[in-house]
Amino acid sequence: MSPSPEIPIGEAQIREAVERLAPWVHKTPVMTSRTLDERAGASVFLKCENLQRVGAFKFRGAMNALLLLDEEAKRAGVVTHSSGNHGQALALAGAQLGVPVTVVMPHTAPQIKQSATAGYGATIRLCEPTIAAREEAVADEVARKGLTLVHPFNDWNVIAGQATAAWELLDQAGPLDCVMVPVGGGGLIAGTTLAVKARSPETLVVGVEPERADDARRSLASGRIEPSGDPRTIADGLRTTLGTRPFAVISRQVDRIETAAEADIVAALRFLWERLKMLVEPSSAVVVAPLLERQPAFAGRRVGAVLSGGNVDVGPFFDALANRWL
Amino acid sequence: MSPSPEIPIGEAQIREAVERLAPWVHKTPVMTSRTLDERAGASVFLKCENLQRVGAFKFRGAMNALLLLDEEAKRAGVVTHSSGNHGQALALAGAQLGVPVTVVMPHTAPQIKQSATAGYGATIRLCEPTIAAREEAVADEVARKGLTLVHPFNDWNVIAGQATAAWELLDQAGPLDCVMVPVGGGGLIAGTTLAVKARSPETLVVGVEPERADDARRSLASGRIEPSGDPRTIADGLRTTLGTRPFAVISRQVDRIETAAEADIVAALRFLWERLKMLVEPSSAVVVAPLLERQPAFAGRRVGAVLSGGNVDVGPFFDALANRWL
Repeated sequence: MSPSPEIPIGEAQIREAVERLAPWVHKTPVMTSRTLDERAGASVFLKCENLQRVGAFKFRGAMNALLLLDEEAKRAGVVTHSSGNHGQALALAGAQLGVPVTVVMPHTAPQIKQSATAGYGATIRLCEPTIAAREEAVADEVARKGLTLVHPFNDWNVIAGQATAAWELLDQAGPLDCVMVPVGGGGLIAGTTLAVKARSPETLVVGVEPERADDARRSLASGRIEPSGDPRTIADGLRTTLGTRPFAVISRQVDRIETAAEADIVAALRFLWERLKMLVEPSSAVVVAPLLERQPAFAGRRVGAVLSGGNVDVGPFFDALANRWL
Repeated sequence: MSPSPEIPIGEAQIREAVERLAPWVHKTPVMTSRTLDERAGASVFLKCENLQRVGAFKFRGAMNALLLLDEEAKRAGVVTHSSGNHGQALALAGAQLGVPVTVVMPHTAPQIKQSATAGYGATIRLCEPTIAAREEAVADEVARKGLTLVHPFNDWNVIAGQATAAWELLDQAGPLDCVMVPVGGGGLIAGTTLAVKARSPETLVVGVEPERADDARRSLASGRIEPSGDPRTIADGLRTTLGTRPFAVISRQVDRIETAAEADIVAALRFLWERLKMLVEPSSAVVVAPLLERQPAFAGRRVGAVLSGGNVDVGPFFDALANRWL
């Protein structure tokens, strides 16, 4: 695909992002498992972005966006709103490049997330826990201090960065019949789709989201972005409403959206931990849930799946351990 | 080193084991981490035996022992006593080769371990939870049914199988100044030592055990096998007293034994889970504990460490998850 006004990212831009990011990101491993293949009735290739820096694919997009800033913008610094993986990814990317990073967070964000982000050297600006307060705080940083907004997913440079994970997967796994990818705000699935369709148009891209956060499915059906609400799903990375830029890609090029029930997400998470020893977060387990159902559509196919991250609160496990042993 | 009456395993036997096992075992990955290297002040190479079949290095030794049986012994079958990783490893190896496997377990062994071992097709024989009852049950299986005992660690063919993990590590990581390995019954450290010293005599082999289960340290000091007792350590794979065969190797060739406090084992476990996303069991975390102390002895060194397994009860984590989300 060539870039268009609606979608300015094509094969050339992704190739450039791959080269630009090479010194900064981990080329994460692709894992295979006989046990998973037997359960799925397919050959499954897991792209382990839980082993990416800061434990999530988000580092790719954040780093790509910072590397593309001009010198003046780098000196002024950047701002984003994210109490999760994107905030930490941007903080680390900024620290590596000497770009000041401000992260706007609701004051209700867990202390552990505030400290983790601050620990990478970012300035934390707290706000009231409403979207209006968050947007006002970001706008204020942009207007008053000249910071550049690096949106977690509604940003073409971020999307081009996220695309590099699937690009690597195709290099590592060889031809694939299908790539499974989780859908949150849409940055990862948009990047994945652009990478996959550029190199292998016949490969299906299947988005997976929690049943309780099925806004991408509803959006594809209605043809416009449907709000996600504030869905109660364990897959906390996937509660977000789609961005307009990701939706431009998803609505044109994604082949299918599947959904996973909460119990199936937890079962997939447990399978990945117990059987495969892959420490991933619930948002990653979502893509494995349909595979464990052994759907005939996957039979004998070569299926890629992006394990998006590994940032999960393991506190309850260690509390139980400490109670028993320390 | 050449084989001797005391130690009949040398470089040739290990090379043969590597070839013999190649079609059966995973050549597990060696992982590196900038975060760990910074913490340790060293270049650390983690041999991920948690990604071995059945989730532990034990599959190597069990498979090697079965492959070396003659046809008659294979038909008759084998017996062992282990409610842990060795029992499951032998069960799977037997299932793959069509060798009947009987595993003697105390009736107090957790149901989950009984089912896991039975799930691989082994026959479970329950006994009273004493060493005398266990040995009697094993002796009975040997005498009455002609089964061959495959001891979890006091068996040269098992030790030669375990040696293949460090052999691969040297191939994958290149020259190492030091290899860290946990000490339980001694099968893994004995095999590791034989492999390392055969190829690179100047590389140090450092055994690590819990402070509360420091029987290897005491045994090295006294020159004879000191009983481990029944130490209360989270590293449940390392509570065992050394076998005579492993001790023959350890007492001659291991360079040093270090110990780790319980709190440091838990901290290392949490570091491996949270920061490296390596789902390992406490017995594996033991080898990383000294590295996190940033000892001057490791400064700038190339250090290998064998992560022995990943079989840990993640139940408390999933209980907390289910309570909150399902």
